[in-house]
Amino acid sequence: MDRRAFSRLSATALAGLALPSPMAGLYHGRRRDLRVSGARLNGWLTEMSRFGANAAGGVDRVAYSDADLEGRAFISGLMREAGLDVSVDLVGNIWGQRAGSDATLPPLVLGSHTDSVPNGGNFDGPLGSLGAVEAAWTLEEAGVTTRHPLSFVVFSNEEGGKTGSRALIGEVSPTELDLPTASGYTIAEGIRRIGGDPARLAEVRLQPGSISGFLELHIEQGATLDRAGEDIGVVLGIVGIMRWNVEVVGAANHAGTTPMRQRRDAMVAAARFTDMVYTTVTDWQGNQVATVGRVHVEPNAPNVIPGKVTLSLEIRDLSMDTITEIQRELEGRAVIIGEETGTTFTSHRFYTSDAAPTSPSIQDMVEESARDLGLTTWRMPSGAGHDAQSMAKLGPMGMIFVPSVGGISHAPDEFTAPEDNTNGADVLLRSLMALDRG
Amino acid sequence: MDRRAFSRLSATALAGLALPSPMAGLYHGRRRDLRVSGARLNGWLTEMSRFGANAAGGVDRVAYSDADLEGRAFISGLMREAGLDVSVDLVGNIWGQRAGSDATLPPLVLGSHTDSVPNGGNFDGPLGSLGAVEAAWTLEEAGVTTRHPLSFVVFSNEEGGKTGSRALIGEVSPTELDLPTASGYTIAEGIRRIGGDPARLAEVRLQPGSISGFLELHIEQGATLDRAGEDIGVVLGIVGIMRWNVEVVGAANHAGTTPMRQRRDAMVAAARFTDMVYTTVTDWQGNQVATVGRVHVEPNAPNVIPGKVTLSLEIRDLSMDTITEIQRELEGRAVIIGEETGTTFTSHRFYTSDAAPTSPSIQDMVEESARDLGLTTWRMPSGAGHDAQSMAKLGPMGMIFVPSVGGISHAPDEFTAPEDNTNGADVLLRSLMALDRG
Repeated sequence: MDRRAFSRLSATALAGLALPSPMAGLYHGRRRDLRVSGARLNGWLTEMSRFGANAAGGVDRVAYSDADLEGRAFISGLMREAGLDVSVDLVGNIWGQRAGSDATLPPLVLGSHTDSVPNGGNFDGPLGSLGAVEAAWTLEEAGVTTRHPLSFVVFSNEEGGKTGSRALIGEVSPTELDLPTASGYTIAEGIRRIGGDPARLAEVRLQPGSISGFLELHIEQGATLDRAGEDIGVVLGIVGIMRWNVEVVGAANHAGTTPMRQRRDAMVAAARFTDMVYTTVTDWQGNQVATVGRVHVEPNAPNVIPGKVTLSLEIRDLSMDTITEIQRELEGRAVIIGEETGTTFTSHRFYTSDAAPTSPSIQDMVEESARDLGLTTWRMPSGAGHDAQSMAKLGPMGMIFVPSVGGISHAPDEFTAPEDNTNGADVLLRSLMALDRG
Repeated sequence: MDRRAFSRLSATALAGLALPSPMAGLYHGRRRDLRVSGARLNGWLTEMSRFGANAAGGVDRVAYSDADLEGRAFISGLMREAGLDVSVDLVGNIWGQRAGSDATLPPLVLGSHTDSVPNGGNFDGPLGSLGAVEAAWTLEEAGVTTRHPLSFVVFSNEEGGKTGSRALIGEVSPTELDLPTASGYTIAEGIRRIGGDPARLAEVRLQPGSISGFLELHIEQGATLDRAGEDIGVVLGIVGIMRWNVEVVGAANHAGTTPMRQRRDAMVAAARFTDMVYTTVTDWQGNQVATVGRVHVEPNAPNVIPGKVTLSLEIRDLSMDTITEIQRELEGRAVIIGEETGTTFTSHRFYTSDAAPTSPSIQDMVEESARDLGLTTWRMPSGAGHDAQSMAKLGPMGMIFVPSVGGISHAPDEFTAPEDNTNGADVLLRSLMALDRG
């Protein structure tokens, strides 16, 4: 440490430094032993599940709804109880600040969201948000001051388009604000409802380097950890996504008078394409996935040979190059299917979400933290999008996954066992402390 | 001929008998040489195309619409000019009667329809209806009296469910009458608009054997004759139809977090099924056709693996046994696809239309009539339904097809060349005379 840097440190900040002094050594030991309260965290998860609870056992806590407002009020109260300095920014993200010993350092940020999809589950979002608050609470109880300032964030409208986190990187366009949401309000109306100001979104934008790091705890939403019997997922990154509309044009014709060999059946062509996508992408080396999820047939009558089929093709991978490479391969094979069936394929990309790799050093910290706790780990991509991918543009980012039973998510049956929730929060806290040590 | 039958014949009727007398011989020769006026028939087709004409060059002359009423008034006028005794029955069929020499014989019936599908073509229906009127006109001009009484019929609402012809065999159910039609009127309202009485439909029912035969001239609506370069299609029968809803159930899941090999993608299974139906039925020996025309995917979103697909399966063939046999084969193969994809297939038949074979002796008469005229013939099933299939339940039935250019039908581009229309009407008239000779 040079003299200039040293001179910026305050007396209290000194206490948090891992210097070879007796006090520093004491802190070091206490920090390593810090453990969250699983009972408290799981109790909060149960309390949160009451806001927007539905008969199916899930929640309708879509962003900007009354239930969302209730959930936000609940977590804001907990954040204040945890000693955080709570505020709401102009896009409606809730922030809880905790001073560090070195005020010159950009903060370390932890958080997730509390809104749900319609008829969603009780863990997607709340676990990461309440897990972060539990980390703050544990630090507060232990009287620990970190080196970095800490920020605890509850992002707004994650499920409806990651509005809160995307605003932080200047990606929310003015036209988007007029879009309706599942709450019945437009995004602009929703932002006003939760205390923001849609006219001033430019002001919430943060610059790259303005945070020292970001950590998000989340349920996996897939069945990989559950099937493999692993405790903690060390997330390699959030996959990139590209989506195309693929239009298959044949010739609509009378299903009775047109012999089989004279048909130019767009549905037969679309069927071969769908099967080809599945087999090609399954056989491809790697973790990539591809889905034909939406199919629209014209004229869609039992007695008319389909003349046109429009289908969606989605490919996800950690590498955007791999996505492009796969799509080129599929396009080539579609040409052959078109020749076989007398149809034409054209595709138009309508959505791209860049891949967001996690920081390799944070991956290592998460892995080491889990192992220190006696937990097993599994390195895996996140196939789902998260607020963390916006935060990756501001500083080093890491994510921690815990198992989703049966891989069920975005549904009332979404479930993660209490001990897994506790494990996740413990790994989150321990990773935070490792990051703080730097 | 026995004395009793002879005693019922009137003097004028005698003139029409093919007896070995100089006069009968003369008639016999004249009858064989009878030819329709192609100019007149094609002129009528052009006039008919004005009723309901749309900008696309097709017609919107759906049953019960004002345009339909205009078309019916036009053809009724022609029928009267052709010397027919015109009336409208209780379901709105237009009948034109022409006495034969033997009033004891059940009539020979010729006809088709004049209503169209929405945005339909100018030949599907009008050709057979006006071709029949042209046959009557030609007989009248030539002063020919047939042995059988002749009935010329314009069936009501063919395109909306063959209401007119089905009422003749007692197949129109009371509940059907409340169904809306493309005209905006219900079937009951429509029947009233065209002079019928929906409350008295039971009275129009005819008994099997009440006609001596039925002939319908129609455009092929497929491309078989056009591609083969043949003049006349000798119709082997109207194919039977069975339709099933096939439900494919997998598991809806997150398209990002569910690895390819863990998926139970209902759309991949439905795709394999659709392709399998096409290849199986194409490779099957015979003229059968099968179509997957309607596909409904749930939840039908680009980022969700389809959990359920409901699709329609339609199979048509002249043999109902073949249809059943093919469906069993497809069902067996679906089980294998289900095992491969972790999905289940269940099917439910929702529609059956019995096959209606044409009379073999009428097939021969049609073929011989065409050959006498120097025309080439092709024996083929009718893949489309026609009023003739109802009439087959009342007496021997035959159908004559003429080429549809490019197989296009139910569309403004539907076209049959004037000489083919003339050929068709000539074969119709000549077949009628052959049937009349018995």
